[in-house]
Amino acid sequence: TFVRGMQTVTLIPGDGIGPEISAAVMKIFEAAKAPIQWEERNVTAIQGPGGKWMIPPDAKESMDRNKIGLKGPLKTPIAAGHPSMNLLLRKTFDLYANVRPCVSIEGYKTPYTDVNLVTIRENTEGEYSGIEHVIVDGVVQSIKLITEQASQRIAEYAFEYARNNQRASVTAVHKANIMRMSDGLFLRKCREAAEKHKDVKFTEMYLDTVCLNMVQDPTQFDVLVMPNLYGDILSDLCAGLIGGLGVTPSGNIGANGVAIFESVHGTAPDIAGKDMANPTALLLSAVMMLRHMGLHAHAEKIQTACFDIIRDKKVLTKDLGGNSKCSEFTEAICQRVRDMD
Amino acid sequence: TFVRGMQTVTLIPGDGIGPEISAAVMKIFEAAKAPIQWEERNVTAIQGPGGKWMIPPDAKESMDRNKIGLKGPLKTPIAAGHPSMNLLLRKTFDLYANVRPCVSIEGYKTPYTDVNLVTIRENTEGEYSGIEHVIVDGVVQSIKLITEQASQRIAEYAFEYARNNQRASVTAVHKANIMRMSDGLFLRKCREAAEKHKDVKFTEMYLDTVCLNMVQDPTQFDVLVMPNLYGDILSDLCAGLIGGLGVTPSGNIGANGVAIFESVHGTAPDIAGKDMANPTALLLSAVMMLRHMGLHAHAEKIQTACFDIIRDKKVLTKDLGGNSKCSEFTEAICQRVRDMD
Ligand SMILES: CC(C)[C@H](C(=O)O)[C@@H](O)C(=O)O
Ligand SMILES: CC(C)[C@H](C(=O)O)[C@@H](O)C(=O)O
Repeated sequence: TFVRGMQTVTLIPGDGIGPEISAAVMKIFEAAKAPIQWEERNVTAIQGPGGKWMIPPDAKESMDRNKIGLKGPLKTPIAAGHPSMNLLLRKTFDLYANVRPCVSIEGYKTPYTDVNLVTIRENTEGEYSGIEHVIVDGVVQSIKLITEQASQRIAEYAFEYARNNQRASVTAVHKANIMRMSDGLFLRKCREAAEKHKDVKFTEMYLDTVCLNMVQDPTQFDVLVMPNLYGDILSDLCAGLIGGLGVTPSGNIGANGVAIFESVHGTAPDIAGKDMANPTALLLSAVMMLRHMGLHAHAEKIQTACFDIIRDKKVLTKDLGGNSKCSEFTEAICQRVRDMD
Repeated sequence: TFVRGMQTVTLIPGDGIGPEISAAVMKIFEAAKAPIQWEERNVTAIQGPGGKWMIPPDAKESMDRNKIGLKGPLKTPIAAGHPSMNLLLRKTFDLYANVRPCVSIEGYKTPYTDVNLVTIRENTEGEYSGIEHVIVDGVVQSIKLITEQASQRIAEYAFEYARNNQRASVTAVHKANIMRMSDGLFLRKCREAAEKHKDVKFTEMYLDTVCLNMVQDPTQFDVLVMPNLYGDILSDLCAGLIGGLGVTPSGNIGANGVAIFESVHGTAPDIAGKDMANPTALLLSAVMMLRHMGLHAHAEKIQTACFDIIRDKKVLTKDLGGNSKCSEFTEAICQRVRDMD
């Protein structure tokens, strides 16, 4: 049912703590009067003709129509040959850019302060091509696939992102000293994009050097762009600097506005259903989503409320150092949102 | 010339600050009366028949004879097709295990304390196979090569290392959820080695999870074993936790006692020849070398003297936070070594 002035978003609550933290986000969105209506879909993979794993048709159809999704954690499939649902979603909707802002959270102490960077990860190829062979018994090859098209697309995206988000520099992260052709191609496309965006500073750095510099002084970094696996690693490393996956948002961006925002932590089956989960990562992902949709005022309000509650330290979930329930933390944010009106 | 009771080591001083820090190490070894005589060799690559790059024959011959080498930094070659000399050395002598202990240094402040871990990196294959192709215009493949033999060898090495160095656990670092066949094979070999070494605890962890946990609490790790590229990244990350490449030793270990120990920082051409370089990384690599040769008393003495001088904070090179010259820092360590007699 279509409501005037409302935009519909596909909600994939996910497994484990997914439903609870999704409910928390919906509650906070309601308190903030965000003009979003949710269309809930399950994405347990099904096998299509020929045994090919795919997203259930009604979830696919919902995403195709709404273009925008919000997703909780999905459990890792154990069946042999069953793909990771996270990867299948990225692939199905060609979500080529994985964007993870890492910003220090006031009041949540880690060894680092003033971290403010964004990792932009190529999300469709590279080491995640899925192409592997046994050459002879005991000898295996995995193929890292780098294409001009995907490299150019992500490089362009990184510079556009920097410009649109008032960020001063982009660093291309690579090992072109070792993988001269593949990372070399990726790097070349970054250099070409840099030529076209002279307003944004461009640097290049070896992945190992980035890791070393990152733990010594993360404040030197701004936007970082890199192939798939390097992004997997660096985004988790950077999340660690500011407090872990429980507080870091993530967005998977495709062409023509298509995007899925997701928390990247696990399903935490041990605490599922116990009203103990921390909804922050999913909430901040939903805030990224609001910005992506142009709903900046709502985004700002919700983010401010969330950070206020964390800074206050009065109502925090266990993983954040408190002893409140998920529902209490959620209610505190809702109250703060209402107080802002 | 052979001196009774002395062992000969091939010394590759290297480029930039290499000669100065090598001289510093030799001086300290002399003060400690370490029974080592040095055979200096240059390893600027030469082109053999068919244009193949190779280690100069007299350097190769020296290493073949002495089996043990100590190496300063080498400048990265710029000629197209010219291999990294570091990689060529690892390959020429089949130095299959790259071992980097990362231990917090008392008195040298970083955001982390009590780090005490060792990264063990497969040093001969993986993403460093050097096999790349252009499939069609704009599509490039790099091949990650994982063999049963090399995986088994490094897995065995890690467990032997743990046992011989009184370390309680080995963690296999992998992305077998993505590279199921290649990292899968690597992981299987680690599991098999674990079965044979039940006295050492075994765990497995995704590379991204290791990175995240590492920056949150590195004290949870002990020995880590992993494929080539992951080791390149993690060893630098871990070096960053304890103060950077200026203070971390490294050893490349092959079969039958063959080994090259090296500092893994750069050649620092900007300060070369100015008596400003910090010899600590090369010195601690030389200490690893002494242990490898069974000269534990000399190793202990030199290491203690070096850490004493750093802890005292009176005579430190610039990068360590002081304003002493390389020669002054070196002399302070020599004096401390002599005072121990
Ligand atoms: C779940 C897993 C397949 C995934 C990845 O490796 O990309 C995860 O680590 C991530 O970063 O989203
Ligand atoms: C110099 C370079 C080729 C090398 C590597 O990538 O292995 C270096 O980073 C290292 O870790 O020894």
